[in-house]
Amino acid sequence: MEKLDFSSDYLEGCADPVMERLARTNHEKSAGYGLDGHSEHARELIRAACAAPEAEVHFLIGGTQVNEVAIFSLLAPCEGVVAVTSGHISVHEAGAIEADGHKVLELPGHDGKLAAADLDECMTLWEKDGNRDHMVQPALVYISQPNEYGLLYSRAELKALHRACDVHGLRLYVDGARLAYALGAPENDVTLPDLAKLADAFYIGGTKCGTLFGEALVFPRPGTVRRFFTIAKQRGALLAKGRLLGVQFEAMFEDGLYGRIGQAAVAQARRVSRAFEDAGCELAHPTQTNQVFPVLTDEQARRLPEVALASFWEKPDLGHAVVRLATSWSTADADVDALVRALGTGILG
Amino acid sequence: MEKLDFSSDYLEGCADPVMERLARTNHEKSAGYGLDGHSEHARELIRAACAAPEAEVHFLIGGTQVNEVAIFSLLAPCEGVVAVTSGHISVHEAGAIEADGHKVLELPGHDGKLAAADLDECMTLWEKDGNRDHMVQPALVYISQPNEYGLLYSRAELKALHRACDVHGLRLYVDGARLAYALGAPENDVTLPDLAKLADAFYIGGTKCGTLFGEALVFPRPGTVRRFFTIAKQRGALLAKGRLLGVQFEAMFEDGLYGRIGQAAVAQARRVSRAFEDAGCELAHPTQTNQVFPVLTDEQARRLPEVALASFWEKPDLGHAVVRLATSWSTADADVDALVRALGTGILG
Amino acid sequence: MEKLDFSSDYLEGCADPVMERLARTNHEKSAGYGLDGHSEHARELIRAACAAPEAEVHFLIGGTQVNEVAIFSLLAPCEGVVAVTSGHISVHEAGAIEADGHKVLELPGHDGKLAAADLDECMTLWEKDGNRDHMVQPALVYISQPNEYGLLYSRAELKALHRACDVHGLRLYVDGARLAYALGAPENDVTLPDLAKLADAFYIGGTKCGTLFGEALVFPRPGTVRRFFTIAKQRGALLAKGRLLGVQFEAMFEDGLYGRIGQAAVAQARRVSRAFEDAGCELAHPTQTNQVFPVLTDEQARRLPEVALASFWEKPDLGHAVVRLATSWSTADADVDALVRALGTGILG
Amino acid sequence: MEKLDFSSDYLEGCADPVMERLARTNHEKSAGYGLDGHSEHARELIRAACAAPEAEVHFLIGGTQVNEVAIFSLLAPCEGVVAVTSGHISVHEAGAIEADGHKVLELPGHDGKLAAADLDECMTLWEKDGNRDHMVQPALVYISQPNEYGLLYSRAELKALHRACDVHGLRLYVDGARLAYALGAPENDVTLPDLAKLADAFYIGGTKCGTLFGEALVFPRPGTVRRFFTIAKQRGALLAKGRLLGVQFEAMFEDGLYGRIGQAAVAQARRVSRAFEDAGCELAHPTQTNQVFPVLTDEQARRLPEVALASFWEKPDLGHAVVRLATSWSTADADVDALVRALGTGILG
Repeated sequence: MEKLDFSSDYLEGCADPVMERLARTNHEKSAGYGLDGHSEHARELIRAACAAPEAEVHFLIGGTQVNEVAIFSLLAPCEGVVAVTSGHISVHEAGAIEADGHKVLELPGHDGKLAAADLDECMTLWEKDGNRDHMVQPALVYISQPNEYGLLYSRAELKALHRACDVHGLRLYVDGARLAYALGAPENDVTLPDLAKLADAFYIGGTKCGTLFGEALVFPRPGTVRRFFTIAKQRGALLAKGRLLGVQFEAMFEDGLYGRIGQAAVAQARRVSRAFEDAGCELAHPTQTNQVFPVLTDEQARRLPEVALASFWEKPDLGHAVVRLATSWSTADADVDALVRALGTGILG
Repeated sequence: MEKLDFSSDYLEGCADPVMERLARTNHEKSAGYGLDGHSEHARELIRAACAAPEAEVHFLIGGTQVNEVAIFSLLAPCEGVVAVTSGHISVHEAGAIEADGHKVLELPGHDGKLAAADLDECMTLWEKDGNRDHMVQPALVYISQPNEYGLLYSRAELKALHRACDVHGLRLYVDGARLAYALGAPENDVTLPDLAKLADAFYIGGTKCGTLFGEALVFPRPGTVRRFFTIAKQRGALLAKGRLLGVQFEAMFEDGLYGRIGQAAVAQARRVSRAFEDAGCELAHPTQTNQVFPVLTDEQARRLPEVALASFWEKPDLGHAVVRLATSWSTADADVDALVRALGTGILG
Repeated sequence: MEKLDFSSDYLEGCADPVMERLARTNHEKSAGYGLDGHSEHARELIRAACAAPEAEVHFLIGGTQVNEVAIFSLLAPCEGVVAVTSGHISVHEAGAIEADGHKVLELPGHDGKLAAADLDECMTLWEKDGNRDHMVQPALVYISQPNEYGLLYSRAELKALHRACDVHGLRLYVDGARLAYALGAPENDVTLPDLAKLADAFYIGGTKCGTLFGEALVFPRPGTVRRFFTIAKQRGALLAKGRLLGVQFEAMFEDGLYGRIGQAAVAQARRVSRAFEDAGCELAHPTQTNQVFPVLTDEQARRLPEVALASFWEKPDLGHAVVRLATSWSTADADVDALVRALGTGILG
Repeated sequence: MEKLDFSSDYLEGCADPVMERLARTNHEKSAGYGLDGHSEHARELIRAACAAPEAEVHFLIGGTQVNEVAIFSLLAPCEGVVAVTSGHISVHEAGAIEADGHKVLELPGHDGKLAAADLDECMTLWEKDGNRDHMVQPALVYISQPNEYGLLYSRAELKALHRACDVHGLRLYVDGARLAYALGAPENDVTLPDLAKLADAFYIGGTKCGTLFGEALVFPRPGTVRRFFTIAKQRGALLAKGRLLGVQFEAMFEDGLYGRIGQAAVAQARRVSRAFEDAGCELAHPTQTNQVFPVLTDEQARRLPEVALASFWEKPDLGHAVVRLATSWSTADADVDALVRALGTGILG
C-alpha cells in the first residue's frame, strides 16, 4: 500500500473541472497577457463575489510572486511593510521584499496573528520618535488569512486592524494563499465582501486551493496602484498565455467550486485533528482551517511516517516535535479514513 | 468565417501530447518546487539532448522571468550585460535587468545580431579606458537564437562570439525563447550540443514552442552560479507545483516532439513568406525561422486584417509599414492555405 | 620646476574664503544633518540667486551622489531617465542609476548635447508603440550644463527641451557639476533664474567650482519629491555635520564668489585654448567653458606631459589623441603663462 | 550665558590639528578618489596601528554610508546580515541595507549586545531547518563597538562571536563610528590589532571622533571583497578630493591624536555620569564610553534643558524619561564643570 501523504496542500495538480476547462479551451486563439475574454470574465466573477464592482483584479502565478509584486507596487521609497515575525514574507520568501528594496518591519504575533493594539502602540511610539526621518516609514500592514498556523482573523479583529491602519495612515494587505480554507471554516465570519471593504489589497489563492497555479490579486478600489501591468512585467510575473489563469478562475468562481473545495478540506482536517486528540496528542494550535499541528513525542514522530507523511514544523523542546498535516481540495475520504483508523489502532504507541 | 490569426506564436494553449500528459498525471502526488520525479526525468532528457551530462537544468515559467533571474544570477555587483539595441532585454522587458541593479550595455546590431568584431572592438576600447573603474564592468553577453527578427546565428558566428568572450573574460548567455524554430530551420547549423559547448547558459523555450508555459534554463557546466534555487524563490520564479514544468518538458523531449514542432512551423512560415513575395511584397528581413516580416504599403496594411491578423512591427517610412506574421506549433495547414490563397487572389491590391 | 598640472578641475582643496570660513566656524555648536543656521542661510542665498523663493534646496556631497539620489527621488517604478550616450550618468557613474533600479534610456547626442527634436521624435514613436506597456516608461530627461565636452545649452535650446518635456509628460533635470563655468562663459545666456524656471531639478556644483566638496540640489517648485531627506539618509548621502555644506555655500553665494570663480577660470581656458590653436592644433570641441580639448598627434601627445599634465580623452584615429586640459578656481596666472610660453616656443614640435 | 550642549558628539567641526592640516595642504595638487599621497600615507599609518600590514583600507564619508557600502560588498544575492534589534543598521539608517536588496536578520540583544550563544543557537536552528533554501541565508554579523548604548564588547566576548562566526560560516563586521571612545575607555581590552584579527571588516570612525567627516574602513585580509572602489563609486560614496580624508586620518594617526581624543572624552563622560548619580538619578545603562543615559522623572526632564541640552532617548514608563548626554573630542572642561556644578546645586530638584 502506498503511504498516505498529508505533507502539503499542493501535492496534486488541480481539481478536475479546472483540468477539463483547460483541455476544452486549449485550441482557442486569444490575446496574451490577460487581455483575453476568459480573463475578463473571471475578473467579473471575482468582482461579483467580492461585491466590489470597481475592483481591479490581476492574475499572477504564485504566492511569493504576488506578495512581492503587490507589496512592491504599494510601497514608495523608504517605506516598509509591517508583519508578524512568523509572517510568510518575514521568513519563507527568501527576502523577496528586501530584494525589491523594502524592509519588513517585524512585530511579535499572538499565535501568528497581528493584534490591532500592538500595531497601534508601535505606530504611536514611532510617530513620537524624534529620529523617525532617519527610519523606514511604516506604510503597509501584511497579514494572512488564514495565517501561517492555520488560524483565522475574526471580522472584529480585521475591523480593528483596519481602524488602526486608518488612524496611522497605513494600508492593509491580506495574503490569501489558503483563502478557500478560511472561507470554508465554520468559525469564519469574514467574507470576500468584508475583505474588499477592509483591505486595500488581497489575493484569492489558487495554487493551494484547486488550480494548477495562479492567484487573483484584488485591489478593491481602482487607482490604488499605478502601472501594475508594467511592474508585473518587469518582475517577470506576467504570464504570456494569461488566459490560462482566467480559465482556471472561471472554473473556481462560476458555480461555487472555490467555496465547496474549502468546506470539504476543512471538514477533513477536523477529522484528522480529532483523531490525533483521541490518540492523546495535544495540538500546538487549534485546528480552524485545513492544517493540523499535533505535538508528538520524538518516538511518535518516528512512527508516524510509517503510516502517513507529514511535514516537520518545529521542536518546542527536546523530546517533542510539532508536525503539520494539511488537507486540501485533493484529499480523498479514503485517505482520511485510513489515517483515522491507524491512529485509532494506536500506531503512535 | 473566423479571421485567420498570425499575430503571435502564443495564441493557443499547448500541443496535444502536453495536455494529455498533464491530465494523465494530474492526481499523482509529488514533492514541490521541481524536486519531483518528472522534473528530474525531464532534466535527464535535456542533458542527453544537449550532450551535457553534468549540466544544471532549472525550469522557470516565462521568458522575461528566465532572462531576469538567469542574468541576475550571472552578474556580480557593478557588472553589466552586453546586448544589441534591439535585444529583448534592452527594450521589451520593462527594465527587468535594471530593476535588479544591472545595466544593459547596448551595442548596435546587424539585422539584430551582435557581431563578434563589434564586441571585440568595444571591449578592447573599454580595457584601455583610464576611467574603467568608474564604469559598469562588462561581464556577460546576451544574444537570442533566433533573434528578435527571426534570424539565426551560424555556428561560425557563435564560435566567434564565444572566442571574443573568452578573450575578454565575458560569459555568454543565449535566449532561446523560440529555440525550436531555430533548431527546425533548414539553414540552421547550431545544435543543442553546440549551445552547451559555446554558451555558459541558455534556455530552451517552451511557451512559444508547444508547452502551456515554461522554459528550461541550462547551465552546461555545474557550479556556474551559486544558490540558483534560492535566487529563483526570491524573485517569485519558483513554481510550487514544479512538476507541471517537468511533465511538459518530458513531453517535449521524450520522443522528439520539440524538434518536429520546430520543423513544421518553419515550413509553414516559408509558405507564408513566399506568398507575400509572390504578391509583390518585399521582406524587411529574410525568413529563416517562424516569423515573416513583409513590408506593406499603408493601403495594404489596412487591407490585410480583413483576411488575417498580423502584429504591427514598425514604420520604415511614411507610406509603409512592416508587419509580423508568426507561425507556431499550433498553425493549421488550412489556415496557411487560406492565407496563401487570399494573397494569391490579390487581396492586397 | 614642478610640472604644470591641468589634468582636472579638482586638483586642490578649496578657494581661500571657503577655508577661512570653515576654520572660523569650526567650534560653533550646531544641529546636524543640515538643520543648522548656516545651511538655512545658504539655502536662502541660493533661493535668492535663483529668484525661486519657494525652492527646496538640499546639500549633498558629490556629483555622482547627487545625480543618483535626485534621479532616484524623481522616478517611480518602471520609469527611466533619458540621456545622451556620452552623458555622465550613462557612462561614468558605474551604473549608479541602474543599481537603484532604473534604466538610462540613451539617445545619440550632438556634440554631447540632447536635441529637443530628437527627444520629441523618440517620444512620439514611443507613444505610438503598441508594446509600450512592456517597456521602460520615459519620465525624466537628464542633461548637463555645461556638458561633458564643456559645451553650453543656449536658453533657446533649453526652452525647446523644456517644451518637449512638457508635451510628452517628462521632467527635466540639469547636472550642474561645473555650473560656475557655464555661468561665467561669455557665450552663456542661461541664468540661474532661467534654470529655476525651465528645470524641475538642477544642482549647483561646488566640488569642481571652489568648495572642498558639496553640491546644492534645487527643486524650484516645492513638493516635487516626497521624503527627500529620508531618501538621502537611506542612500548614505546625508552628511552628519551638514553645516559644513551650508558654510561653504554661504561663502560662494554671499558676495558673488561663485560667479567670479567661473569667469576667471573660463578666461584662463580661453588663453590655453588659443595657445594650442596658435601652436597649430585643432580642437575636438570649441572651448566655451573651462575645458580645452586639443587634438594632438601621437608625437605631440608624448611631448606635452614634459611640460604640463593633461588627461587622456580619446583616440579619434590611429595617429592622433584628444587630451583634455581643465582650468578651475585654483588655476594660477603663472601656470597659464608658463603653458602659453611653452606652447609658443614650439614644445609640441 | 549660552546653554550647555551635550546633545550629540558631532556638534562642532573638527579637532584643531585636523583643521590646521586641511588649511596647510589646501593648495597642494593631487590625484582624486583617494589615489593621492596623503591617503596612501594614512592607509600605512592605519595598517601599522592595526598590526595588519596587508590590510585594505578605504576612506568613506559617513557612518550610514560605510555600513551600507561595506555590507553590500560583503553579501552575495539572497544573503542577509545578522544584527541586534537595536543595531544602528536595524533602526536608524532608513532601511539602507534593504534598499540594497538585503535583509537585516534581527536578534534580541543584551543591553544592545549580541551574545555568541544566541548567535550559535539561532544558526544551529537555521541549519536544521528543512525550508532553509526558501529563506535568507545568514552570511554576516554586524556589531558596533561601542554599541548603541555606549557599551563595550570585551575581548572574550568578541572572540566568542568570532568563533561562532567561524563555526557557522559567517563573517564579522564591526561598526566603529565611536571607536575612539571604546579604545579610550578604562574597561576596554579590545585593541585595533584585536579587531584586525577577529573581524573580517571594521571601520574606524572619524566623524564623531575628531574629523570633519570620514570613516576608515579596514579589510584586514586582502581580497575580502572584489571591486570595492567601483562599488563605492556606484553608491555615490567616492569623494572626488579623496585626499581630504587622507589628510584628516594622517592627523589622527600620526602622533596618537585618535587615542588622546578618546581618553579625554571618556573621562569627561565619567564626570557627567557621576554627577547624575550624585544627584540621585539612576542610569539606564552603565557609563563605559562617551555616552551617559540618566533616567529622569518627567519633572526633571523638563528642568534639565534650562541648564544643558541632552537628547531624548526613550520613555521606560509613564512618569520617566531616559535622556542621552554625549561628550566628545570637543567637550570643554568648563562645560563639564558647569554641568557638574548645576547638578550639585540641585537643579533637578
